[in-house]
Amino acid sequence: MKNDIPRLMQERHLDAIVVQGDTDTSSDLAYLTGGVKLEGAALIWRRDAEPVLFTTPIERENGAATGLRLRLWNEFNLIEYMKAHNNDRFAATVALFRDLLDSEGVSGRVGFYGVGDRGYSYRFLSALAAACPTIEVVGEALPNLFNAARQTKDSAELAAIQEVGRLTAEVIDGVIALIQAQRVQDDRLIQADGHPLTIGDVKAFIRLELARRNLEEVHENIFSQGRDAGVPHNAGQPDMPLRLGQSIIFDIFPRHRQSGYFTDITRTFFLGAAPPELAQRWQQVKTIFDAVLAELRPGQPCTHYQHMTCDYFEDLGYPTTRSQPKTMVGYPHSLGHGVGRDIHESPSLNHLPDNDTLLQPGHVFTVEPGLYYPDEGWGIRIEDSLAFDAAGNLINLSNYPYEMVIPVG
Amino acid sequence: MKNDIPRLMQERHLDAIVVQGDTDTSSDLAYLTGGVKLEGAALIWRRDAEPVLFTTPIERENGAATGLRLRLWNEFNLIEYMKAHNNDRFAATVALFRDLLDSEGVSGRVGFYGVGDRGYSYRFLSALAAACPTIEVVGEALPNLFNAARQTKDSAELAAIQEVGRLTAEVIDGVIALIQAQRVQDDRLIQADGHPLTIGDVKAFIRLELARRNLEEVHENIFSQGRDAGVPHNAGQPDMPLRLGQSIIFDIFPRHRQSGYFTDITRTFFLGAAPPELAQRWQQVKTIFDAVLAELRPGQPCTHYQHMTCDYFEDLGYPTTRSQPKTMVGYPHSLGHGVGRDIHESPSLNHLPDNDTLLQPGHVFTVEPGLYYPDEGWGIRIEDSLAFDAAGNLINLSNYPYEMVIPVG
Repeated sequence: MKNDIPRLMQERHLDAIVVQGDTDTSSDLAYLTGGVKLEGAALIWRRDAEPVLFTTPIERENGAATGLRLRLWNEFNLIEYMKAHNNDRFAATVALFRDLLDSEGVSGRVGFYGVGDRGYSYRFLSALAAACPTIEVVGEALPNLFNAARQTKDSAELAAIQEVGRLTAEVIDGVIALIQAQRVQDDRLIQADGHPLTIGDVKAFIRLELARRNLEEVHENIFSQGRDAGVPHNAGQPDMPLRLGQSIIFDIFPRHRQSGYFTDITRTFFLGAAPPELAQRWQQVKTIFDAVLAELRPGQPCTHYQHMTCDYFEDLGYPTTRSQPKTMVGYPHSLGHGVGRDIHESPSLNHLPDNDTLLQPGHVFTVEPGLYYPDEGWGIRIEDSLAFDAAGNLINLSNYPYEMVIPVG
Repeated sequence: MKNDIPRLMQERHLDAIVVQGDTDTSSDLAYLTGGVKLEGAALIWRRDAEPVLFTTPIERENGAATGLRLRLWNEFNLIEYMKAHNNDRFAATVALFRDLLDSEGVSGRVGFYGVGDRGYSYRFLSALAAACPTIEVVGEALPNLFNAARQTKDSAELAAIQEVGRLTAEVIDGVIALIQAQRVQDDRLIQADGHPLTIGDVKAFIRLELARRNLEEVHENIFSQGRDAGVPHNAGQPDMPLRLGQSIIFDIFPRHRQSGYFTDITRTFFLGAAPPELAQRWQQVKTIFDAVLAELRPGQPCTHYQHMTCDYFEDLGYPTTRSQPKTMVGYPHSLGHGVGRDIHESPSLNHLPDNDTLLQPGHVFTVEPGLYYPDEGWGIRIEDSLAFDAAGNLINLSNYPYEMVIPVG
């Protein structure tokens, strides 16, 4: 949580942190501004002081809305710095930033965060390290201080994620109602205008329903059918008509425009009826999904649940990335990921050997087992977003029925 | 343009470039994939070879859709690398990437790009430099190779930006129609349900109209009134009713979800009538806007137009950031910026002493003079997106009327 940051600085022997960038790409910066949007900002937080936020003059009001102590970039005149550095903007920027850090009394081990061009960050921080003899520039490996702080959510964050889950459930309801409103002809759904209902039509409908609820489709949602459902990140082909009896993976992960928090939920269903073999596969995925949910406990290692899922699928004869690292069929991904201001964040429910995270109160994460056989024309995944509240109780933030078949016609 | 990249590599003495990240945050990566979306990818381009794209197995189909030569990350087994490095994921990742670059024969001066955590990028590229004796890790200052390549658009890019401009004009038409559909009571607009029309209502309407056209509001649009219009990046207060006779700045800059290109347009208008003093200010802004557009020519320095605008406003007695670097009133920003896969990119129409860019065919940029006096309760900005086509002809990509007053009631 945010108020863990001073403690995390101490544990990592950091005397200060510097977070630079814009809040639309840096979720760490957005985390610290409380979601207030800024395009060109830097936040400097000495362990023994209150944080200070630098913004451009034209964003001074957004800056003030954060409640943080505010300073403006134009206290430092870039053009004067450029004159002093033969119009070399890079050298001028380094000198300006050195003076800015100095004006806040920053020294010692300083961690740098925020999002930027990789090569520029390397060049800039290398030059800053050379220009600031009293500062040790620290670039953290992952998981870094923000991964650690952000993985546990406070009650306001849990409520925000629950709310985006509730609104997303309304959108899923709408999609199912749209599907059921069509008439069936052969194995297709036919709209009032005589055209078959396509994946593109469904996605256009989803976009409108999201916009009505102030939800953003930051990353393209997945509505994939048949063989496409067999490739986990295939988002679906817009011109493909929906067909009866195909596995359809509907994976939707919008962000609330106001709170800035994501949710993530997947359902797999068949229109009309499921072929018996695929109904059995669906039940297998649902069985391990239920088994994992029933066993989730604070204090358990995250890796336990991925191993449990791999054990289950391997016993049934499916390959996993544990048994066959290069497999693209069977169960070829990890069990889940944290959800918050990023769609993928800590904790990870994977089986990497360095994953020593234990589930704990405040964790928000997905559980999403799946099976994928594109060459056989199907894929199945079931996913909810879950949380442990402050008391360690499991909360289902998705809270949506698991229907294998949507009756049509 | 994209096919300038090999020449730009040569000019910058780069033997190869490496672009890593996800296409939702790295517009350089999206530029190279042609807009195909990827979450975890790396593109490696040796100057003397075809580029190669690395993707995760679950994104292999998206990767193939780029038309680039494709390899998968899972050729390299991270878990085996971790075993060889005492489960240190950072060290394993560096070693893996070293071998990956080696497998493509990368050596010499190598530029690194793409978006990532600043501190991690510094640490990772420092470690990679140490691990790869045959590679010189280059982090470019700005403007870098991609700034240079992307600032000139080919005909397909121009068409994409023109199309998002056309769709945005429809949205502005819709907003004006919404405003004119309300009845007037005192100085407010009253909706059919008896409630005043607020900025929040207008913004909700805009979001729906954008969604209907497959446009994304990546950064929050500006619909600001009165004193708020006097602060350039104030996006407007949702609960504020629209009022007659106030300056309203409507600055809208959506991205097309399919093409991935932005447009940017601003109109300032008054409902019912403009107070005479503000009508005069509006005309002043429009006068310099027109004067700049009439003078735009390929071959002219970008700085010329900012100086021309500062001359004009200073002659009228307004402060500018040229005459008073810390001013927050008068004309406190630069004249314009490039528009493409980023809302702000090269070229810049500013007066920084290192800005030696000449306007040229393929440039797409805004012209947006403005005046801001929040304490007097007003702000005015007029902005279009413009381009030079391959023949050097100026094209207005916004192509929308300039109405100072919207008749209501």
